[in-house]
Amino acid sequence: MQKASLPKGTRDFSPQVMARRNFIVDTIKSVYTLYGFEPIETPAMENLSTLTGKYGQEGDTLLFKILNSGDYLKKADQDALNTKDSNRLISSISDKGLRYDLTVPFARYVVQNQTEISFPFRRYQIQPVWRADRPQKGRYREFWQCDADVIGTISLICEADFIDIYHKVFTTLGLTNYQVRINHRKVLEAIAKTIRFESSFTDLTIAIDKLDKIGWDGVSKELISKGLDASNIAKLKTLLTVQPFNESTINQIESQLIDCPEKTTGIQELRQVLAYSNLQNIHIALDLSLARGLDYYTGCIFEANIEDSPIGSVSGGGRYDDLTGIFGLKDVSGVGISFGLDRLYDIMLHLDLFKESIQQTKLLFCHFDSKGQSHCLTLANALRNSGLTSVVYPDNKKINKQFDYANKSGFKWVAVVGDNEISNHTVQLKNMETGKQEEVSQDSLIEALS
Amino acid sequence: MQKASLPKGTRDFSPQVMARRNFIVDTIKSVYTLYGFEPIETPAMENLSTLTGKYGQEGDTLLFKILNSGDYLKKADQDALNTKDSNRLISSISDKGLRYDLTVPFARYVVQNQTEISFPFRRYQIQPVWRADRPQKGRYREFWQCDADVIGTISLICEADFIDIYHKVFTTLGLTNYQVRINHRKVLEAIAKTIRFESSFTDLTIAIDKLDKIGWDGVSKELISKGLDASNIAKLKTLLTVQPFNESTINQIESQLIDCPEKTTGIQELRQVLAYSNLQNIHIALDLSLARGLDYYTGCIFEANIEDSPIGSVSGGGRYDDLTGIFGLKDVSGVGISFGLDRLYDIMLHLDLFKESIQQTKLLFCHFDSKGQSHCLTLANALRNSGLTSVVYPDNKKINKQFDYANKSGFKWVAVVGDNEISNHTVQLKNMETGKQEEVSQDSLIEALS
Repeated sequence: MQKASLPKGTRDFSPQVMARRNFIVDTIKSVYTLYGFEPIETPAMENLSTLTGKYGQEGDTLLFKILNSGDYLKKADQDALNTKDSNRLISSISDKGLRYDLTVPFARYVVQNQTEISFPFRRYQIQPVWRADRPQKGRYREFWQCDADVIGTISLICEADFIDIYHKVFTTLGLTNYQVRINHRKVLEAIAKTIRFESSFTDLTIAIDKLDKIGWDGVSKELISKGLDASNIAKLKTLLTVQPFNESTINQIESQLIDCPEKTTGIQELRQVLAYSNLQNIHIALDLSLARGLDYYTGCIFEANIEDSPIGSVSGGGRYDDLTGIFGLKDVSGVGISFGLDRLYDIMLHLDLFKESIQQTKLLFCHFDSKGQSHCLTLANALRNSGLTSVVYPDNKKINKQFDYANKSGFKWVAVVGDNEISNHTVQLKNMETGKQEEVSQDSLIEALS
Repeated sequence: MQKASLPKGTRDFSPQVMARRNFIVDTIKSVYTLYGFEPIETPAMENLSTLTGKYGQEGDTLLFKILNSGDYLKKADQDALNTKDSNRLISSISDKGLRYDLTVPFARYVVQNQTEISFPFRRYQIQPVWRADRPQKGRYREFWQCDADVIGTISLICEADFIDIYHKVFTTLGLTNYQVRINHRKVLEAIAKTIRFESSFTDLTIAIDKLDKIGWDGVSKELISKGLDASNIAKLKTLLTVQPFNESTINQIESQLIDCPEKTTGIQELRQVLAYSNLQNIHIALDLSLARGLDYYTGCIFEANIEDSPIGSVSGGGRYDDLTGIFGLKDVSGVGISFGLDRLYDIMLHLDLFKESIQQTKLLFCHFDSKGQSHCLTLANALRNSGLTSVVYPDNKKINKQFDYANKSGFKWVAVVGDNEISNHTVQLKNMETGKQEEVSQDSLIEALS
């Protein structure tokens, strides 16, 4: 006998969990749809050549690789086999891997389908991704991303759209304590110039990305050790303070930065995003410490988190000027965001935001004998033809067993049919939530349920 | 530069294809839901021990195996490495595989979650599966199955439910020329006894499974070569003729079979399914040649196909008495069916059954300058707040370019805003399907669109 078990870091989703996850996914889908995004899907497996080298060296080791079919050792690298060099052997015994995110597959999709796509192309994509990360609380080896991107325009209307989308998604989910933070890569570059640290730009971003974890003292120490002049630390600290995203903050930052092309572009674009947005009620802040995978983003950068929750960011995004370049389509600018479904789920569970009524309303027909059961079949079919979910208890068991099942399986309604009810053309209808029970005629059953 | 390409046998789905696939999936989901089935999902990866040995020897070779992470060669079977024995090496360098179907993961799920499940458990599951099959027309390496199963009851009401479900799914999809065929494993066993061939039962089912391909002459030849008495061939042929599924056919078959326990059970169960069903308008036939993976099914067997289509069966299913036994949960009977999403899609495309209106209704705001564009942003937000999908053309391009984009991207409506419209508080609204254009006030825009 085999033990039923799952690979670590992976999960099953029960009907109750599915109903909650679907509530989140449906909310995100409907908001994306309102803004004209349309769904695409790409395969779970990509060629390893598509994935390798796109996520840094660590990313390459976290890719799940699929063993080639058939006699895969026939073409295996003999030297790598002899020296038992696992890393070097991979490319000769595996040519496919599981997708690691939705962004690289999307770039591949756009290039491969460029003649059929009319740009600007607005797509959303909600699918699982896989990473061979060490599983831990809130981190899974199979998890879901919910991406939306506009590709083929440099218009900052898109950035304004995404700010709106954040607001609509979070408030619809009941996550009213959300905070969106915005930054601009060019402003960050202007900061580096202002503190005369532009030659160590990567050191700067690596350090400030740790602000959350090691605090300002830690960041200062690290930057001083990398050669940043102590007199510039104070200036940097002022600039990196999270502030409201509005005209006066932008003016103030503008005045603190030395003149350079990056400042001109960055400040002007932030102003334009502001002009395109109606920020009333929207919780957004300007956070010049936001760096997030800068190799990748070239313009605005977004991150969102939920206050009072133990989990960090639930979404990130930004503008990238050359995502499709690696696959041969140059000079196509895009901007996008991605929600982490599993993190949203964990936070909503933690904050007790799921209503129990998310599951389908459904009715169970209960009976005392085969005659009653047959009668129920007819009634159930009539309900289904009116679009109401109903199930006839399939076995001949005691009525309390049937009620027990209704309770455990989340049936809101139970209709009991015995000989009296058959003669009277009625059912005993019980609302399992309120406990209220009444005899209703078969003809008015649909009405009584709605 | 890298070429953008996909692993063979896998596909991207564009927004247009997604809209069509979602139409099929949503139809199946809503019918499953009407009958009280609830969704679960299981991970793409399962432990190889869960999958291996469940699909026959060929199945094992068709499983996609995932290379262990890290220094996987460290624990590799040294003998297998030395002899370059690909097959033998697998278990030491791979402990996970991609799921091959949804049935085995479901059995694993039920056993693993048995304490939380209340039986009978009605679940549906719509997810991709992966098989390293040789790709060919209509056969993919990643494809979708849409399964529903009831587990934990022997009641034949479930079989009657599935017959109803077939009818509702096919007619809702517009596949009115469907045909469901039903058989019963025990009747097939009684046939083997009747023609005195019970000791070669597997040979019998293997041969009759080929009836579609090699015809009756081929089947006879094969069975005679396996030792079937020629005088019984005619008897078998009569029994295996497809007939209406009704009381008189069942009586007639009953009279042709020799008495045995299998006959008693099989005939009685078919009669009971008939009694539970309202077969008016339902296209169902009794096909005693239907064998489908008999190792697995123990009671009723189903198969469905669409007439006038070049593709074989689009769904199969049946009752199994001991699916969860391999994982240690004995004596739990279940019954289920599975639709092949990709086959349904291919057939509906072939029969031209997709309506072009499946995609979301959406409106594009077009403009002549930045002033008009800004005005459009406000109008678009108002529409979105009323639940209408709208997009502001993000760039400042010539109006015919904007119309061109609207056409290619499937916008049903275009609203043009120039200086006159701003002054008049109106838009020029064009229906891109009819070509009709009129000036409507901003306040009545929502009304005009619905």
